[in-house]
Amino acid sequence: MKNAILITIGDEILSGNTIDTNSNFIATELKSIGISVKQIFTISDEIEVIKSTLKDAFDLGDLVITTGGLGPTRDDKTKKAFLEFFDDELISDEKTFKHLSDYLISRNRQDLLELNKSQADVLSKAIVFQNDFGTAPCQMIEQNGKLVFSLPGVPYEVKPLIKDKILPYLKEKFELDSIFTRIVSVVNVPESILAERIADWEDHLPSHISLSYLPIGNRVKLRITASGKDFSQLENDVETQIQFLLKIIGENVIATYEDKIEKILGEILTDRKLSISTTESCTGGEISKLITSVSGSSKYFLGGIVTYATQKKIDILKVSKETVAEHTVVSEEVALEMARGGQKLFGTNICLSTTGVAGPSKGEDGKDVGTVFYSIRIHDIEKASHLYLPYMERTDFMNFVAQRILQDLVAMLVQNH
Amino acid sequence: MKNAILITIGDEILSGNTIDTNSNFIATELKSIGISVKQIFTISDEIEVIKSTLKDAFDLGDLVITTGGLGPTRDDKTKKAFLEFFDDELISDEKTFKHLSDYLISRNRQDLLELNKSQADVLSKAIVFQNDFGTAPCQMIEQNGKLVFSLPGVPYEVKPLIKDKILPYLKEKFELDSIFTRIVSVVNVPESILAERIADWEDHLPSHISLSYLPIGNRVKLRITASGKDFSQLENDVETQIQFLLKIIGENVIATYEDKIEKILGEILTDRKLSISTTESCTGGEISKLITSVSGSSKYFLGGIVTYATQKKIDILKVSKETVAEHTVVSEEVALEMARGGQKLFGTNICLSTTGVAGPSKGEDGKDVGTVFYSIRIHDIEKASHLYLPYMERTDFMNFVAQRILQDLVAMLVQNH
Repeated sequence: MKNAILITIGDEILSGNTIDTNSNFIATELKSIGISVKQIFTISDEIEVIKSTLKDAFDLGDLVITTGGLGPTRDDKTKKAFLEFFDDELISDEKTFKHLSDYLISRNRQDLLELNKSQADVLSKAIVFQNDFGTAPCQMIEQNGKLVFSLPGVPYEVKPLIKDKILPYLKEKFELDSIFTRIVSVVNVPESILAERIADWEDHLPSHISLSYLPIGNRVKLRITASGKDFSQLENDVETQIQFLLKIIGENVIATYEDKIEKILGEILTDRKLSISTTESCTGGEISKLITSVSGSSKYFLGGIVTYATQKKIDILKVSKETVAEHTVVSEEVALEMARGGQKLFGTNICLSTTGVAGPSKGEDGKDVGTVFYSIRIHDIEKASHLYLPYMERTDFMNFVAQRILQDLVAMLVQNH
Repeated sequence: MKNAILITIGDEILSGNTIDTNSNFIATELKSIGISVKQIFTISDEIEVIKSTLKDAFDLGDLVITTGGLGPTRDDKTKKAFLEFFDDELISDEKTFKHLSDYLISRNRQDLLELNKSQADVLSKAIVFQNDFGTAPCQMIEQNGKLVFSLPGVPYEVKPLIKDKILPYLKEKFELDSIFTRIVSVVNVPESILAERIADWEDHLPSHISLSYLPIGNRVKLRITASGKDFSQLENDVETQIQFLLKIIGENVIATYEDKIEKILGEILTDRKLSISTTESCTGGEISKLITSVSGSSKYFLGGIVTYATQKKIDILKVSKETVAEHTVVSEEVALEMARGGQKLFGTNICLSTTGVAGPSKGEDGKDVGTVFYSIRIHDIEKASHLYLPYMERTDFMNFVAQRILQDLVAMLVQNH
């Protein structure tokens, strides 16, 4: 298996101003074609540091991908480091200049051409991959059978360069095997017990198929990966193994294709022509945001409401004053009434609700921080649940609860099939 | 200034399964006490790799912080590497065992004590910082005046260890200067022009005060940092400089304390006793989520609604059918009517609205992907705006629009003060 080394260049990440999301994206994409990331260096924007890290990376991996340190205002440090490291010279490249010029014209920024034109100067030994979403092109140098790519640092420039240009190039260049992956999501069984139950199946997997466990929330994702020459054969082989697996733990499986819970839900709802709405309090819109982050969600998501103030729960969702007085607003009873009210308001088959205390200060009724009641209503079936997550930060709490309620909903839908 | 090297240990990050958020958190926290992160190594969970990286890191920095590679199921690779690197031996530590045992009992997981008890074995040379949110303690070894910390990898264990235990320890140990930082948010002026306008002020800053530019969206954050012995003197010095700055660019400044736009907004709304609600379409709840991510937001945020389906905009927000027919649902006119409807529904002083096409497929009325109209209504003043962001991914788009509308609202509130 080929190994990649990533080098993230730039002080924004070292200073804590920016989270490095490029490395995660690149690692995931490389894995999909069978290249694993062996190490990541995050370094500052200094020519000597870039050069010495290039040397280490060059020794460690079959290919090296750098991101960042390009662009005219940053003095093109990465380009200078590449020039010195590969003992090369800059040439002005007509094709790259034309691409840059067209790019700026298409965005009505011709005025920037003078400032940016040095970005069309490339290393004489480089292969250039044009950047359709920014001004710095990607350059690649090959030396001693190893490949070194230099990319810009902006995530929305990195993504299409990797996906549309570099991956296809690497696949052909390295004559890589095809890789086929499916993810099976298992709920309501702890990882250790799951491992015991499927140990025998795992032991008998063919050698070109591998398995890994990814626990998330109270779900375990089983990633089944096959590699080989014939893609459609791989698809068949994995499907066969999933069928075996379903015989052993079928009742705990909520999905065998999609990975993300909001996508799994989207497929089920589309499939069964069910509509959904949300009524949130402590999650503040996180659930509707998660549902609508899926393209095509307008087919099943009709709407959601965040009734943050208690009076709005009463006015808009018709939660009864008496219920609030008797049980407090953070209670199972209010969660159930919210979902009932939301189902009516939006006229949906399904409605979800949350009411709780995200913290860090206590709620108006004195319930402990980290307490949440949520309810799931499907037609006229309803179920309320309770979580207590006192150790989580506010935004982590909101996200955890949203993930969990969607997961419970999916489990209910799958089990009542 | 002291330098830190971070080592992130674990295959989850290299494989792309997990985004490394620990490094960002640690870098930000260290910076707040005047320690800068010089380099980050992200490496796999192998003893030899950990040891050789420890060596490199030890040479490069004044202190080294490793995260991950602990825990009984991971074979405690980091602990073994530390043992070999420092040529030390394990001792069972009574205080750590007591802490572990109390921790498990408090969570009703006494059954795990046997499995986890090896986590109370620590290096004989180590200083131990107890972990109040997990089973693996933090250990620190001092050698040749340099400090090496080993932390677990779980973010909610890392955060309190760093904040409550390691930072205070480092401040005392290194006799660090105090650091005081404030951030001034500037809008409606491009970075280059801003730099020109404040060049003279910047040139005359006292030597213990530094300035950095952080452009985000169409806002520029100016970070003003002072370092020295006397904290209250630093506060005064920075305040003095901010007063000078306000004389030059006061009309473009929207905040001089808070950093995040949702917090800036929260302070203004609390201050002026204004209430707010949201009516969203293409942002799917992202705006209400952003507003409610601030602790104490229940004081001013009464509620929000996501009317994803056009019919819900008509039914619940009283957007007129004629307006939709004439202008389509993705239009300035519908954005304005949504905010009017939301202001009535929730009875708030302010209401925000969005209607657009997040993509990747076109909206029902054929508007281009990346088109969004949004409206801000404050009492009876209303303003509609338009953005076109065709190159953004769905979730990035949702977040960008949410950030932008809050920023515009803050600018309006500040200018109409």
